[in-house]
Amino acid sequence: MTVTTGGARPRLIREINEQVLLDHIRRSGPISRTELAGLTGLSKPTVSAALSSLERAGLVHMTGQRTGVPGPAASLYEVRPEAGFVLGLDVGREYLRGAIADLAGTVRSRRSVRTKAGDAMARIQELVDLSGTLAAEAGIETAQLTQTVLGSPGVYDPRLDALTLTGRLSGWDSPATLAALRDRFGPTLMIENDVDAAAIAERVHGHGRDVDSFAFVSVGTGIGMGLVLDGKLRHGSHGVAGEIGYLPFTEGSGSDQRDARKRGGFDASASAAAVVRAARRAGVRGATTAEKVFAAAARGDALAAAVVAEEALLVAKAVCTVITVVDPDLVVLGGGIGQAPGFLEAVSKQLRQLAPVMPEVKASVLGSETVVAGCIAAGLERAWQTLVGNSA
Amino acid sequence: MTVTTGGARPRLIREINEQVLLDHIRRSGPISRTELAGLTGLSKPTVSAALSSLERAGLVHMTGQRTGVPGPAASLYEVRPEAGFVLGLDVGREYLRGAIADLAGTVRSRRSVRTKAGDAMARIQELVDLSGTLAAEAGIETAQLTQTVLGSPGVYDPRLDALTLTGRLSGWDSPATLAALRDRFGPTLMIENDVDAAAIAERVHGHGRDVDSFAFVSVGTGIGMGLVLDGKLRHGSHGVAGEIGYLPFTEGSGSDQRDARKRGGFDASASAAAVVRAARRAGVRGATTAEKVFAAAARGDALAAAVVAEEALLVAKAVCTVITVVDPDLVVLGGGIGQAPGFLEAVSKQLRQLAPVMPEVKASVLGSETVVAGCIAAGLERAWQTLVGNSA
Repeated sequence: MTVTTGGARPRLIREINEQVLLDHIRRSGPISRTELAGLTGLSKPTVSAALSSLERAGLVHMTGQRTGVPGPAASLYEVRPEAGFVLGLDVGREYLRGAIADLAGTVRSRRSVRTKAGDAMARIQELVDLSGTLAAEAGIETAQLTQTVLGSPGVYDPRLDALTLTGRLSGWDSPATLAALRDRFGPTLMIENDVDAAAIAERVHGHGRDVDSFAFVSVGTGIGMGLVLDGKLRHGSHGVAGEIGYLPFTEGSGSDQRDARKRGGFDASASAAAVVRAARRAGVRGATTAEKVFAAAARGDALAAAVVAEEALLVAKAVCTVITVVDPDLVVLGGGIGQAPGFLEAVSKQLRQLAPVMPEVKASVLGSETVVAGCIAAGLERAWQTLVGNSA
Repeated sequence: MTVTTGGARPRLIREINEQVLLDHIRRSGPISRTELAGLTGLSKPTVSAALSSLERAGLVHMTGQRTGVPGPAASLYEVRPEAGFVLGLDVGREYLRGAIADLAGTVRSRRSVRTKAGDAMARIQELVDLSGTLAAEAGIETAQLTQTVLGSPGVYDPRLDALTLTGRLSGWDSPATLAALRDRFGPTLMIENDVDAAAIAERVHGHGRDVDSFAFVSVGTGIGMGLVLDGKLRHGSHGVAGEIGYLPFTEGSGSDQRDARKRGGFDASASAAAVVRAARRAGVRGATTAEKVFAAAARGDALAAAVVAEEALLVAKAVCTVITVVDPDLVVLGGGIGQAPGFLEAVSKQLRQLAPVMPEVKASVLGSETVVAGCIAAGLERAWQTLVGNSA
């Protein structure tokens, strides 16, 4: 789910030749005038004129000379990393995380803080403070940020212009929250569902690199899915594509009716809290967190192992559901439970009994910075669209 | 699921101008030389030369003169309907249906026959006989067929080059069946899942006309879904996208374990046979068909009404699943049960309790010819791609 918060997008470059050159320079790294002419089919004088214009606009710069080849040394051009900066933020219930990257994708600063906020407005203030700290550490002003992307629970419904289904983050779905976020972060703010942001990270840095379509299924404190079809993240008509917490499953022994009404049947049956409920009902000792239940199962506690096996079956059913609906090339399991040791194998075993066909199923190897990385990737893409004037 | 059965596709038209003109003539109906020049930006002499070439190739013809406007009367061109013919076939367990349309989409012959075949080979022979009859009634030779599309249960897995999940059509998934179909119908045969074909018909002739994405959920003797995203039917990586019979639901009172293993949990809980099982278990009198159970419920039989309500809940769960995974603009209910009077309302009522968001939900108004109509539409599209050389 993406929301662009108002404002005209500057079309810095209107000349089509400059757009084409900039795109080639971005993709091909340090590159010479002659190589650019060869790649684009433009004449060398045209390339020279366009390069001058791009240099004046501060978008590219000369980075050195290619030597060691016959003939005079060729000047090499690259995108000026400082031509733009992207801020990625991840707002969770316990932690706020963030990073700033330059237009070349190099991370200039990174930080996570434990949140002390008691309500949505205090949380927004913490995000503003974190952004200030990150900017200072990156050596830039916040005004230099080309794009800010906030990874957040919930989805943005473009028909309602509202954040909905924000789950465990209390007050986050109120119109005042969206208004305050837009006010504090300005017109370049995009809000992306946190699991969708993780899926983008998976596409750019993880298992999703090599396939056209995959589902990133995240199971942990919350449950969600990012669905990439034909290389594109799918948000759906109302922004709820991938909200698999609402799968109408009610059979888990940790299922909770009140939770099911609030966050959906599958969430109420299979989230970390549901695992803890199931373990307590089964009499597992010391079952205060899902992590402890999984650890007990790994140590050979038969009661805990039964709870983990039931969790694997529930997740296999969710994955089976995704297969029957869209049949992706690959399913990636993420989140605290999804990435727990041995869980992939347990889910795969159950899935083979259920699914009409077995796709590749892998566990994510990305860590706690995944949402921020996805926000940075989405922000870079948007920043480039803005710069080359191709924004949708 | 689509399979093109071998052979090179003739590129009848190589000249790009001719392709552009043909496409405009196809879309804009009877049209003059001057109008074509205006639409395409081509010069009138270029348009004239290309039109002559298209006329010689038999693809367009002059259809009359535009009079009543100032200046000399303008010759109008249209696609020659006889430039191609498409055969659509629907192979069901009880009926075989078919139609032949010309390239303008006009149906030239149409027919359905009750099948007497005891096995797959006999069924293929009946399809061949039906095709011969349809061709004779259309006044053409079968050799004149540009494209044949067979709507069939099951899916084509391109990775295995095999028909799978053919459900209730015994022997239909054997390699010999696919080989015989290819042998009898030649290189222009495409095989499309029957529910996917119905979804194509829904897109071209039904509720799907006005939206970018919709799910056609068919519930009757069998269960399936055709998923259209961004205007395109989605087959999935292994051809199983939409095989929602395999949704891992097992809670229906008509559920049957053996059926679940063969055709999936949702199919075993909610197909017409499952409705009959549930009704019998509930003690509904005369429950020999799902239709009779629905009729009894409509007459006020409380036991039958409970069975129908349970069926509505199961179908609502399936629709909720589709919403949480892909969030389409619209869900269309089809099939004998999906289109039963009052069923849409019963499903919608349950869905409002389950789903994170309510899309439009409608019952299909298309009839028993839907699969054939979808096959014709898919065949026309493919025939055009072949003719204008844009085939994928």
